[in-house]
Amino acid sequence: MIKKLLIANRGEIAVRIIRACREMGIESVAVFSEADREALHVQLADEAYCIGPTSSKDSYLNVTNIISVAILTACDAIHPGYGFLAENADFAELCRECNITFVGPSPEAITKMGTKDIARETMREAGVPIVPGSTGIINDIDEALELVEKIQYPVIIKATAGGGGKGIRVAKNEQELIKGINITQQEALTAFGNPGVYIEKYIQDFRHVEIQVLADSYGNTLHLGERDCSIQRRLQKLLEETPSPALDGEIRAEMGNAAVKAAKAVDYSGAGTVEFIYDYRNRKFYFMEMNTRIQVEHPVTELVTGIDLVKEQIRVASGERLTLNQKDVTFTGWAIECRINAENPEKNFMPSAGKIHMYLPPGGLGVRIDSAAYPGYTIPPYYDSMIAKVITYGSSREEAIARMKRALSEFVIEGIHTTIPFHLKLLEHEKFVEGQFNTKFLELHDVMKSS
Amino acid sequence: MIKKLLIANRGEIAVRIIRACREMGIESVAVFSEADREALHVQLADEAYCIGPTSSKDSYLNVTNIISVAILTACDAIHPGYGFLAENADFAELCRECNITFVGPSPEAITKMGTKDIARETMREAGVPIVPGSTGIINDIDEALELVEKIQYPVIIKATAGGGGKGIRVAKNEQELIKGINITQQEALTAFGNPGVYIEKYIQDFRHVEIQVLADSYGNTLHLGERDCSIQRRLQKLLEETPSPALDGEIRAEMGNAAVKAAKAVDYSGAGTVEFIYDYRNRKFYFMEMNTRIQVEHPVTELVTGIDLVKEQIRVASGERLTLNQKDVTFTGWAIECRINAENPEKNFMPSAGKIHMYLPPGGLGVRIDSAAYPGYTIPPYYDSMIAKVITYGSSREEAIARMKRALSEFVIEGIHTTIPFHLKLLEHEKFVEGQFNTKFLELHDVMKSS
Repeated sequence: MIKKLLIANRGEIAVRIIRACREMGIESVAVFSEADREALHVQLADEAYCIGPTSSKDSYLNVTNIISVAILTACDAIHPGYGFLAENADFAELCRECNITFVGPSPEAITKMGTKDIARETMREAGVPIVPGSTGIINDIDEALELVEKIQYPVIIKATAGGGGKGIRVAKNEQELIKGINITQQEALTAFGNPGVYIEKYIQDFRHVEIQVLADSYGNTLHLGERDCSIQRRLQKLLEETPSPALDGEIRAEMGNAAVKAAKAVDYSGAGTVEFIYDYRNRKFYFMEMNTRIQVEHPVTELVTGIDLVKEQIRVASGERLTLNQKDVTFTGWAIECRINAENPEKNFMPSAGKIHMYLPPGGLGVRIDSAAYPGYTIPPYYDSMIAKVITYGSSREEAIARMKRALSEFVIEGIHTTIPFHLKLLEHEKFVEGQFNTKFLELHDVMKSS
Repeated sequence: MIKKLLIANRGEIAVRIIRACREMGIESVAVFSEADREALHVQLADEAYCIGPTSSKDSYLNVTNIISVAILTACDAIHPGYGFLAENADFAELCRECNITFVGPSPEAITKMGTKDIARETMREAGVPIVPGSTGIINDIDEALELVEKIQYPVIIKATAGGGGKGIRVAKNEQELIKGINITQQEALTAFGNPGVYIEKYIQDFRHVEIQVLADSYGNTLHLGERDCSIQRRLQKLLEETPSPALDGEIRAEMGNAAVKAAKAVDYSGAGTVEFIYDYRNRKFYFMEMNTRIQVEHPVTELVTGIDLVKEQIRVASGERLTLNQKDVTFTGWAIECRINAENPEKNFMPSAGKIHMYLPPGGLGVRIDSAAYPGYTIPPYYDSMIAKVITYGSSREEAIARMKRALSEFVIEGIHTTIPFHLKLLEHEKFVEGQFNTKFLELHDVMKSS
């Protein structure tokens, strides 16, 4: 079993991992940028080391310094959290070379899933449904035009190295296609160092439904049900729930099996998420991408399955076998997560960093808070704007929603703007309450102006 | 269904009930003493009214003012919480006369269970095991001596109107018996206005194990498993858990059935608790008393059964039928509650009221906080010293304990002393970890001095 773990991250996910370590009797080592000297993860870890200046590039992405701290403090493992180095195959490879356990899948699995065109092909071979589109990278405009002749507009142009909503562009006609390919290639080169793009049929109305998978290094792979993450703003998820109000038992089982196939196709180990486009009108789903890491929204799955995903990640990375079978995984109740961001929803979600003067998270039955905020904490403007996750659990969707409204209404955060007012409006919105929404919901409905 | 509820209480339980109201769409009305003007329950309720000066007698026990507020604000129900008026049959009766729903059992059930000698007789008749002892009140010393001849010393002298550890005295010989009866009678007359005492065989080594029951007004009565509350200091519970490490399936089922019998014997409705003395050496249990109200430790039951007890109380009081059958009640995992008091465990648990300068409750998976504290709150010295309940849930007792240690270690409360250091020591104590303890544990072990 891992004895000492370095957490190569910050914010609530660093706190989440430190908590798992403490409960497992594993020593925790935090790292931090100069801007994060007062951060909660620094205070909670057993040890903490500064790894560079404010800029992520020089601190949380500073591979040399992070590995050095791990070696100097005799850590036998590194947990990357999400974002930063979590899906960086080179980093996972470097850990391996340094004889440090990377808490995540193999570099090979990360590479296969992180390179979108390869992932598509791997899924096609494994029999996982994929959206009609190009076979691998688009080499030139002619190839693109020929393909679109077959699959028809609208299409979506995606950077193969992109992800999380970055490096994506829709084209409805030839002009948009040509322009889109050029711009996406240029942007992808700058942002990811890889200009490759591929093309897929653009499915206009769909729900984002993803499956949590969990696998050990001995070929045992489970799925832990779905999460519906259709409530997004500019491709950033704002609210997630499980189960999905849109799935029935048949689709759920098919999607779960497809996710297990996807994971097995890359010899996946650890916790991962297979994201699907769910074309609910036609009851069809297609592989979107696999996130080869723990996700922000993992807590909703934990609440309905009773499985501690971060502990499972650590156990699997330590070489343990899963003690669960698929039939042991049961789903009880309903869970919803609201991401609370330091943004002003009245002013187009403008970032609102600054000092939190008063802070009192909600409590009571069925309320979980994952946050790195505290009274007197100054939110630095340099990183992610998410300051807390409020997760509620109930025996039904109705109860989980009622509890979320109750919890958000008593959450005290003074000194900055937050997205709590947005969530309170959203939770009251008729379409949301009915479970009738797709990924365009926030484009179509001005939630802040709804009554 | 109840539309508007007055909460005749303060502190965390008032907050707990207000939260249930909010989730159910019920308007909440708080009441408060002059000392509680800044209290959290006052801030969270939809309306709040001062009902008198600091003294409990003039405020939280001020029946006239409480009923007046209920009538003037058009409340159709009153929830008494625990303590104060919760087991006051006259108050329940007055509510009935004023056409206000009392969220609790009938005045008759409260009276039968609140009068300890009557409760004993009722249990005897219902076939619930009781400790050998007197049939009703002891009328004179001769009767007591005659009884003790039969049941043998040591015996316990109990005020029939007592409860919660008050009005209880052990006698090991004739001298102690005579003196004990006299003193207990005098004290009971002063404290409860009723000098009646009765005598039982004193069972020296036992665990306090209680069964949660839930009943509607149509004769449906369920039990929701047990709680082990053996960790007590001067008869005040400090830590509770479910399941009990001392019960096996057979005893658990017998005790559950006995509790249902006990509740049915008094036509109980609502949530209640049947407390048992569990003589683990002989695998025998005896009725101790029934608490005809919600209890401090109810959350551990909620976490392993998934049932919201306060909502069930409100539904049953509204005249709804239970939607559950006994076979629908399932128990998953393990839950532990630590009562965090404003007391200094290094100085013999001396009360430590005052201002909380910094306050940050723990969060994350499997941690529930029920508290009325907040940063800047001044704890008044006039009421209960409990300032927070930390409840952890895990898949096993080991995980629930590890999570509790993690949660308590990150709980920040500055400005006052708390019992957190005591709990951290307790959770490390070998005997506690092994589950080997009885109600004398804290008399026998100086936990604060243990390594």
